[in-house]
Amino acid sequence: MRFAVTYLVESDAASIEARAKGIAVEQSVEMPLEAVTDERVLADIVGEVEAIQDQGHGRFAVRIALASATVGTDAGQFMNMLFGNTSLQEDVILHDVAVPETLREAFGGPRHGIPELRRKLHLHERAFAGSALKPQGLTPGDLALLAERFARGGLDFVKDDHGLADQHYSRFADRIRAVTAGIAQGVRATGHPTRYIPSLTGNLDQLRAQAALAREEGIDCVMVAPMVSGVSSVQALVAEFPDLAFFAHPSLGGLRISPDLLIGKLFPLIGADAVIFPSFGGRFGYSPETCRRLALHARCGLTGQEVAGHVGSGYTGPGHAGSGPTGSGPRPALPVPAGGMTLARTGEILDFYGPDTMLLIGGNLLLAREHIATEAEAFVRAVADHRYT
Amino acid sequence: MRFAVTYLVESDAASIEARAKGIAVEQSVEMPLEAVTDERVLADIVGEVEAIQDQGHGRFAVRIALASATVGTDAGQFMNMLFGNTSLQEDVILHDVAVPETLREAFGGPRHGIPELRRKLHLHERAFAGSALKPQGLTPGDLALLAERFARGGLDFVKDDHGLADQHYSRFADRIRAVTAGIAQGVRATGHPTRYIPSLTGNLDQLRAQAALAREEGIDCVMVAPMVSGVSSVQALVAEFPDLAFFAHPSLGGLRISPDLLIGKLFPLIGADAVIFPSFGGRFGYSPETCRRLALHARCGLTGQEVAGHVGSGYTGPGHAGSGPTGSGPRPALPVPAGGMTLARTGEILDFYGPDTMLLIGGNLLLAREHIATEAEAFVRAVADHRYT
Repeated sequence: MRFAVTYLVESDAASIEARAKGIAVEQSVEMPLEAVTDERVLADIVGEVEAIQDQGHGRFAVRIALASATVGTDAGQFMNMLFGNTSLQEDVILHDVAVPETLREAFGGPRHGIPELRRKLHLHERAFAGSALKPQGLTPGDLALLAERFARGGLDFVKDDHGLADQHYSRFADRIRAVTAGIAQGVRATGHPTRYIPSLTGNLDQLRAQAALAREEGIDCVMVAPMVSGVSSVQALVAEFPDLAFFAHPSLGGLRISPDLLIGKLFPLIGADAVIFPSFGGRFGYSPETCRRLALHARCGLTGQEVAGHVGSGYTGPGHAGSGPTGSGPRPALPVPAGGMTLARTGEILDFYGPDTMLLIGGNLLLAREHIATEAEAFVRAVADHRYT
Repeated sequence: MRFAVTYLVESDAASIEARAKGIAVEQSVEMPLEAVTDERVLADIVGEVEAIQDQGHGRFAVRIALASATVGTDAGQFMNMLFGNTSLQEDVILHDVAVPETLREAFGGPRHGIPELRRKLHLHERAFAGSALKPQGLTPGDLALLAERFARGGLDFVKDDHGLADQHYSRFADRIRAVTAGIAQGVRATGHPTRYIPSLTGNLDQLRAQAALAREEGIDCVMVAPMVSGVSSVQALVAEFPDLAFFAHPSLGGLRISPDLLIGKLFPLIGADAVIFPSFGGRFGYSPETCRRLALHARCGLTGQEVAGHVGSGYTGPGHAGSGPTGSGPRPALPVPAGGMTLARTGEILDFYGPDTMLLIGGNLLLAREHIATEAEAFVRAVADHRYT
């Protein structure tokens, strides 16, 4: 059993065959083939170059078949075999992986995904609207007040800023209790089931303790940063807390891995129900094309149902991925474009991503300062009233 | 309390001030400063640009002071605050960190380091010689045979290839029992206390179970890949197994973080006693200058005792870092250049790195096939007999 991995390699045409073979060896047996004496290893384990495609400008797409047996069922080992040593080569990008069915089953993918998030929020048509609790340095009481304002504005999700951890000025336990209470106040006022998404940090024991504490508080959505916490720990957490929906944060994701692969495919693969990523046109440099692919992968990457005309080419009406009935397999993950979004861009962003999306406006909402609830309300209205062009 | 972080930023001169401020905000409060209402947050938490230095060719070194309070004592949160979101910016490299005393104490650094590794191996002068068990795909019995040959050759360390995990064809428990027995055979023949370094993988529970199993087998050195397992999990493991010496593997280390920082400083900071890295002149692209700095940092980064003339400028005799008496603080970590080393390069590598080094020759030794023990012996002799120029 093998699976195909595609790397983009900068090389001259004369060297690319040797480079490709070098990567195939590096990501499998990592030794001179002349020194491999076991015939079974040569036949079944050594990576095989399947195709080399010249993309012009000194760049080649190299497709290599790796053995599934070397991966097993651990997400860390999966990353290790995909890109462990080759990540140290500055002229190679991990571009794509054709995840085989056995590995999909082993990792499990999103347990909740778009359908369950829609059900929780009682939203069956429009996109989701969320914001973030910040700045870093505020007390739990201050954050709770902010959360209450967001909830009074009717936001769907209020997430922790990814910098919030278990700091002495804002202990995790104190924060989630205070924020949960703040949001409950808002929910009582609006009747809308706004969800709080606390950020879980630390090692697996700490992640686990925080997830349990969150569950005790009635929280059913949490955020993790797989590249910080380690994909193996996130994998374990997802398996142990099947009732929680997991939002993946891209922190420390700046490896030379194509973002649409890392965030759009690999994070959902290990169980992310929603993936947060920096959208085009904000503070980060992802192109619209990258964002389009990332969102498509998140929604359809594991189910294989690519929904044409859904993203980036004008949304054309209902009947979209994820809001229909789903089976027992992995579910479509929710794309969460963020990173410098503004209220003014709501329409443009919705037209681009369509309604199976959560819009996340952080700092820009906070600029309203004491009028945050009103601003949040305007944001939700903009999402709800949007007519797709 | 603040600590200085240096980023290398590609920018034009007109934009660099704004870029620097942008990074300072991104790595602290991550929101528009106009929206920050809390005076204490503005004064104590928001990152401050301390210096901008034009390095020419459109590159600037930007020094930013971040608040220690945002980090706390979790290694994952440390990485998150150093480079979390900014890692997603393709034109920024995390270049250096001036780790403050409070964080050094919190993380603990190498518990064993060079002095304890020298004591274990009864080596007080020369460099260490090691090799790796591979290829991926061999059975525990095959790997044990190979390990025995290495030990019969008198190698100091025999490590698992970083691709070896807990695969169905070679279960961790079976492998370490078989390899330990194989090495014991070799040790009985030579009298030299060759050490086996198994690679620990998976989530924290699995890492912990594997470390406990290794300890039961009498193993006192293990390998971890901090960027795969997550730095927080490695931090926990180091604290729970103070009797084990930890070798850090650079797998998945290809973030835009300077290797001399990531591998030379940050891995020892969280407790690595030895750091494996791809040396110049092998399969990877690190320059001699990068390798020189990486090794210097590993040995002296935490103690602050930079030993002049030690690395890269010709070793000039004994009296080197780490083999003298040490206090109770963190100890110098052992640099382990690897990645395409050959027996023929032993002299050159030793002259470059000096004796507080472990030479790691993997695939090249395996080319000797049935003469591996003889080849390993020649390797150890080359290390032992080397006269530094």
